Amino acid sequence: MRRAVALAARGAGETSPNPVVGCVILNAAGEPVGEGYHQRAGGPHAEIHALRAAGEHARGGTALVTLEPCDHTGRTGPCSRALIDAGIARVRYAVADPHAAAAGGAATLAAAGVDVAGGLLAAEAAEVNRAWLTSVRHGRPFVRWKFAATLDGRTAAADGSSRWITSPAARADVHRLRAAADAVVVGSGTARADDPHLAARLPDPAASGSAVRQPLRVVLDTGATAVKPGARVLDGAAPTLIAVAEDAGTAHLAGRTGDGTVSVVRLPRAPGGQGLSVPALLEALYARDVRSVLLEGGARLAGSFVAAGAVDEVTAYLAPALLGAGPAALAGGGIGTIAEALRLEVTAVDRIGPDLRITAAVPGPPPAIRTPSVTAPDAPEEN
Amino acid sequence: MRRAVALAARGAGETSPNPVVGCVILNAAGEPVGEGYHQRAGGPHAEIHALRAAGEHARGGTALVTLEPCDHTGRTGPCSRALIDAGIARVRYAVADPHAAAAGGAATLAAAGVDVAGGLLAAEAAEVNRAWLTSVRHGRPFVRWKFAATLDGRTAAADGSSRWITSPAARADVHRLRAAADAVVVGSGTARADDPHLAARLPDPAASGSAVRQPLRVVLDTGATAVKPGARVLDGAAPTLIAVAEDAGTAHLAGRTGDGTVSVVRLPRAPGGQGLSVPALLEALYARDVRSVLLEGGARLAGSFVAAGAVDEVTAYLAPALLGAGPAALAGGGIGTIAEALRLEVTAVDRIGPDLRITAAVPGPPPAIRTPSVTAPDAPEEN
Ligand SMILES: NC(=O)c1ccc[n+]([C@@H]2O[C@H](COP(=O)([O-])OP(=O)(O)OC[C@H]3O[C@@H](n4cnc5c(N)ncnc54)[C@H](OP(=O)(O)O)[C@@H]3O)[C@@H](O)[C@H]2O)c1
Ligand SMILES: NC(=O)c1ccc[n+]([C@@H]2O[C@H](COP(=O)([O-])OP(=O)(O)OC[C@H]3O[C@@H](n4cnc5c(N)ncnc54)[C@H](OP(=O)(O)O)[C@@H]3O)[C@@H](O)[C@H]2O)c1
Repeated sequence: MRRAVALAARGAGETSPNPVVGCVILNAAGEPVGEGYHQRAGGPHAEIHALRAAGEHARGGTALVTLEPCDHTGRTGPCSRALIDAGIARVRYAVADPHAAAAGGAATLAAAGVDVAGGLLAAEAAEVNRAWLTSVRHGRPFVRWKFAATLDGRTAAADGSSRWITSPAARADVHRLRAAADAVVVGSGTARADDPHLAARLPDPAASGSAVRQPLRVVLDTGATAVKPGARVLDGAAPTLIAVAEDAGTAHLAGRTGDGTVSVVRLPRAPGGQGLSVPALLEALYARDVRSVLLEGGARLAGSFVAAGAVDEVTAYLAPALLGAGPAALAGGGIGTIAEALRLEVTAVDRIGPDLRITAAVPGPPPAIRTPSVTAPDAPEEN
Repeated sequence: MRRAVALAARGAGETSPNPVVGCVILNAAGEPVGEGYHQRAGGPHAEIHALRAAGEHARGGTALVTLEPCDHTGRTGPCSRALIDAGIARVRYAVADPHAAAAGGAATLAAAGVDVAGGLLAAEAAEVNRAWLTSVRHGRPFVRWKFAATLDGRTAAADGSSRWITSPAARADVHRLRAAADAVVVGSGTARADDPHLAARLPDPAASGSAVRQPLRVVLDTGATAVKPGARVLDGAAPTLIAVAEDAGTAHLAGRTGDGTVSVVRLPRAPGGQGLSVPALLEALYARDVRSVLLEGGARLAGSFVAAGAVDEVTAYLAPALLGAGPAALAGGGIGTIAEALRLEVTAVDRIGPDLRITAAVPGPPPAIRTPSVTAPDAPEEN
């Protein structure tokens, strides 16, 4: 199963809106005879790749798969059926399919007499699918908020200058986060101040064997006044979505939306808050198959996400520097007193050049891990 | 020498205003025959401990010592003399005595025909003496600024509540920093808001074999209005120094200064700044044999220290929490633009319970390491 989890991780960033999945097939004698992973949305599922590799050796064997096999007929037919047809006798999966609360692939397999059980290495397997599982659980994209600040929490000096707080190495690392996300989101304040490009540039795309998968670039621009013709997000290097209020005039963007790379979405305003409704934005993104968002600021937009309970993970790039004045990394969030602080758990600390990258996540049980309950009526004893 | 550095470290926190020093004596055959370290100010130097342990075996042998042997007659006589008298043939030291720029113990030893050279493991040996070397170089105490904040740099919530930002483990760790410092310093804002005790409480003083060495508690209280009778710093658990302006009325403290645990120092005001002069404070502390200061805040006092160029190291306890509003860890410091940021180097990152402890230091060459230049005229070739 550890091998299957490693295989699954290979699909990271390529499978959205699907999860990453890895699969290893053992023959009846317990020897590995085939493996595979879900490589990209629309392509075959991990089980199919692995069964193809195993061929006739799968008969009477075991399938180790990181996610409960699917039971629905999509572009490739249900994996439960494929496993049964290949003569697989045992299925061990790590994480239950959160879509299939009652009758998923496991039930179908069990009904066909396959010895099936879940929960094996569930935590590790859930971790590689953290974004996807979170998005399924909440019915909205997984949100990672990224910020860069000094050790004393400033994102710019007193005069507003901020080039550069963090090192080139830390800034390069952000492109990795962009490439792994389905969408990158900023507020109109950031769009105005920085005219950011928001596309992912990786040092050596050739090394990964393919072009960098670009995230959807999203700007929250209530009045449609921040993204002006000539803005870098309109350059066609990646698709761009401008979120505006229902009554905003977008005539000046019309010339750009024609080529298909730039689109406009109209959203309700945040009731009582500033700007656009964050839940409405996330719903609109989810509907566009966005399962993971990299929120790149600024401080006020991040505050609205915090207030909406829509931050799942934080990646802080901290430069070992002090400023003593200047804007803070987070402004707002609706937290009035210490007991209301948004408490996270540090999941990783890494040195990136001279800087620190601190990753912290909203704590909680690994998402969508159900206790396995489905076994074949005539399942032999585990040995 | 590595052993000597480890021995030196045993004296940490006990030797001020002296450095920590470790010494190993090898006999003429190169076998270790004695070792020692400087245990506390006023006690014998490391070399004396080690020579006593070695006795006659020192004759013709080698002394490995972390700091250039002293050449002046203090309470224990010059170590250079003691080494010569014991018949030591070779001396290897790590760090040159920064006091003795021209004619230190090394010169005396060389003049007596001892083969002497410095620089061995100098960086490691300088590190254990970082605070002392910094204080000698600058002629003021070494200053470590400690703060506790959220990941977004806040030290309290919007309503001022701050109990507790960090975990019990992180707060306990601060007592270790206090015990290692000669003085703990706070501003009147902190004294007013928190009525802090500032003494060092270690979990198990018995385990260290002796009572905790208490730092001098220092409050910068310009008008002598923040520390009121009944304040916890006046409880006699550790000595206390109240720094006030030259014209401040301190009659209400008179009752407390009688028992010798509380004293008052009058300092000039900061020219053009707020409160008292930081350089004048540091001078007054240095005159009281304070070689290391733990600056415990608050934000404005820390800003004055930053502006005065008087922060050598920063220890940040960061809780993985977000507040989005509330006071920042550092206020002021005279930094107007990004190019003026006080740039540090991360020297350590540790997890303390759920929190992070980030240690960062002002970069620069290890203090007071001179290239060794003194060797005996008839020194044999190194082998
Ligand atoms: N260090 C970092 O990591 C980092 C990252 C990004 C940006 N920055 C800096 O942050 C600064 C900009 O930050 P900022 O706080 O001023 O602006 P911001 O958060 O980028 O944008 C805030 C603006 O977005 C619009 N908006 C739309 N919907 C919103 C919602 N639900 N909640 C909040 N805002 C919404 C609002 O303006 P309208 O309603 O008028 O559209 C609002 O004023 C820039 O200087 C930039 O350089 C730093
Ligand atoms: N999270 C943490 O690590 C931490 C640590 C400590 C404190 N705190 C919090 O910080 C808050 C207090 O911070 P603060 O910034 O208001 O006060 P502060 O820095 O503790 O004290 C500032 C006051 O000290 C006096 N002072 C004397 N000489 C000074 C100088 N050279 N520079 C600056 N001030 C000088 C000034 O008042 P006078 O001239 O009138 O005496 C000044 O107003 C409290 O709420 C406390 O709980 C947090």
